[in-house]
Amino acid sequence: MNIIEIIEKKKHGGALNSDEIKYFIDGMLDGSIEKYQTSSLLMAILLKDMDREETFNLTKAMVESGDEVDLSSIDGIKCDKHSTGGVGDKVSLALIPLVSSLGVKMAKMSGKGLGHTGGTLDKLESIPGFNISLSEEEYIDAINTYGEAIISQTGNLAPADKELYALRDVTGTIDSIPLIASSIMSKKLASGADTILLDVKTGSGAFMSEVEGAKELARIMVDIGNDYGRDTKAVVSNMDEPLGYAIGNSLELIEAIETLKGNGPDDFNKLILELGSIILDQSKIESDRDKAKEMLWENMTNGKGLEKLKDLIKAQGGNPDVIDNVALLPLSSRMSFINSESSGYISGINALEIGILSRDLGAGRKIAGEKIDHSVGIILNKKTGDYVEEGEVLATIYHSKDLEDSFISRFIDAYSFSDDKVAEKTIVYEYIK
Amino acid sequence: MNIIEIIEKKKHGGALNSDEIKYFIDGMLDGSIEKYQTSSLLMAILLKDMDREETFNLTKAMVESGDEVDLSSIDGIKCDKHSTGGVGDKVSLALIPLVSSLGVKMAKMSGKGLGHTGGTLDKLESIPGFNISLSEEEYIDAINTYGEAIISQTGNLAPADKELYALRDVTGTIDSIPLIASSIMSKKLASGADTILLDVKTGSGAFMSEVEGAKELARIMVDIGNDYGRDTKAVVSNMDEPLGYAIGNSLELIEAIETLKGNGPDDFNKLILELGSIILDQSKIESDRDKAKEMLWENMTNGKGLEKLKDLIKAQGGNPDVIDNVALLPLSSRMSFINSESSGYISGINALEIGILSRDLGAGRKIAGEKIDHSVGIILNKKTGDYVEEGEVLATIYHSKDLEDSFISRFIDAYSFSDDKVAEKTIVYEYIK
Repeated sequence: MNIIEIIEKKKHGGALNSDEIKYFIDGMLDGSIEKYQTSSLLMAILLKDMDREETFNLTKAMVESGDEVDLSSIDGIKCDKHSTGGVGDKVSLALIPLVSSLGVKMAKMSGKGLGHTGGTLDKLESIPGFNISLSEEEYIDAINTYGEAIISQTGNLAPADKELYALRDVTGTIDSIPLIASSIMSKKLASGADTILLDVKTGSGAFMSEVEGAKELARIMVDIGNDYGRDTKAVVSNMDEPLGYAIGNSLELIEAIETLKGNGPDDFNKLILELGSIILDQSKIESDRDKAKEMLWENMTNGKGLEKLKDLIKAQGGNPDVIDNVALLPLSSRMSFINSESSGYISGINALEIGILSRDLGAGRKIAGEKIDHSVGIILNKKTGDYVEEGEVLATIYHSKDLEDSFISRFIDAYSFSDDKVAEKTIVYEYIK
Repeated sequence: MNIIEIIEKKKHGGALNSDEIKYFIDGMLDGSIEKYQTSSLLMAILLKDMDREETFNLTKAMVESGDEVDLSSIDGIKCDKHSTGGVGDKVSLALIPLVSSLGVKMAKMSGKGLGHTGGTLDKLESIPGFNISLSEEEYIDAINTYGEAIISQTGNLAPADKELYALRDVTGTIDSIPLIASSIMSKKLASGADTILLDVKTGSGAFMSEVEGAKELARIMVDIGNDYGRDTKAVVSNMDEPLGYAIGNSLELIEAIETLKGNGPDDFNKLILELGSIILDQSKIESDRDKAKEMLWENMTNGKGLEKLKDLIKAQGGNPDVIDNVALLPLSSRMSFINSESSGYISGINALEIGILSRDLGAGRKIAGEKIDHSVGIILNKKTGDYVEEGEVLATIYHSKDLEDSFISRFIDAYSFSDDKVAEKTIVYEYIK
């Protein structure tokens, strides 16, 4: 076997077998396959695709390239959820405590934000003292004690993914469904949970801008997970406009707290109930999804979900007083309003553009490892479907440096308007199991 | 401009403009573009193709990446010919002296053999003393004095091609028509001749096994050359079986000498007349191709062509006595015969297989730079269309080490037989101008 033959096979549209895929991943990691050979193969995969079996074998080889987290010392079903990333996506901050309040064991390893999308860990790090870097033992203890934990990756999980991703990033080989699917699933599978729920975002602010592509990605990831013996399900959800009203780290945490007090935005509430009811099913607590939604709604309004967010913060060294006093969170006192220059119904808010503008405020990163500013962000005062008069406030910007004119014009340009009422947006396009 | 955008554009099937192509070639050479980015782009080019303008611009950028040979101090039209490589392809050894005997100025830079194909320079180096490494000044002097010279590349011609080729060789990106065309043409254009005749081989022993692909390659190279302002023409010729009877360095030189005495094999004679008559047209000596063929045939039989081969050898320091005494050439005295195991008409001799077997004897190289053995090779006693009886000699092997059984069985397996007469083979499929 040699890498050139493998490249030739894929280039001609052939399906690689498990030995060939393992040879490739092992060779890439031990350096016997050069980066320029890997990138050539990646481009061939991008343009010639991989079938279900190949994608599964690629994922498996990536999982086996590193450690796997052993969660067996936690009783019961361990659940994980993962979002492919969006703008204002603070789902985990509210959902994990909420399902945990109903007895689910949530074991979640998460990532930092990059580009126009935020990261759950950054949002949690808004909380004074919050520690995302638990050891594996501390992580397991936290789940055993509180039924929940959200940390950064421990150990050496899927090192092949790290290397492949870094190379894909600089060789134009990011947007390949089998490569995206194996990248996400290798980390999820190595993280060791029994069940996985994937929230595959689609729309202007998502990685997959088209619904059909997102469904295909979701389908493949669900198949990989189930083929691997883990109960894996997915929803394809709307990311045409930012989720909820808040974008930015402290702001999103505040919105999650409000949501667990029953005051969440409609789109965010609905998505949490959809996802939460699937997790309750996966953890065999309640298989009737409508009933599950009722249970979730109850704990979103009776304070039990909020109590579990407090537990999560306490367990990971953060100051739980932020729940009752959000003034303890870093939040810039420099606020500016963006006023509408049009009258009409808002027919769209380009989530990608809002994400980039939020990042430019300092809420996100252009390159991995950059420091971010937890105190800045955006509150959308109006969302798609709302009627606004010219001069009304569209949004409130929390910033730490002067806003440039170009920021304001770009912000306004991210909105589109209609004279007619706008159809209500779909929150979840499809549930894939 | 950045390389990732360029890769993305090509990956989506877009046409790169001249600035983008120049940015790529310059960046590759100055190291600002990484090899793994180049190979990703090469795979995208291979799978998404390049149009005529892109291929021209790529070739131009490659020519401009290095020096260009200035032949202006030679009077008249300077002609070049190039073969894409085959088995037993000793065309240049006979054709260049022959057309030179009719007043053509032949300025040819050539290459060494690699893989299953031989190289003109290796064949010339069979001659004791022959020097393929003339300086540019000596090269021009030789052409001014004798009307002909065949040397290895001088100076720094198309360095981008060297780098690209080395990378293509190890990343599965060899077989792309625009990449092949620009590689060949960048070297030819940088070599400075006014006219170029391309002999594009097709068949089992050629780089392009299918006639249609060879025609496409020929068409693109002819277009590039003419777009660049050089009179460029091509023939697509047959390489299903080896050309002539001889394969191997001394053996092929001997066959060329015999051909210039009027004793050449039919297929070889025909091809030389076809190519020679085009060169006589390109050099404005005789535009009537039939008349040109008569002139060529005359000098193939009256000794004038042979005299020019003697001149070529003398001019480049070789011993011209080899012409009259081929025993001065290195030739192994270990000869073995391969006898036919079948009776019937030979319907095919796999040129690739014969080329590989010849290389395995030591006549060629597996990797660039390897030493070769000029004294070994193969004489085909029978060719396609001939009738053989079981036990008759198919071929004579000149070898320096013991022949393995597997050599003999592979050799015999390279032949196919038919009970019926076989149609005469086409020598030239198409003339492209």
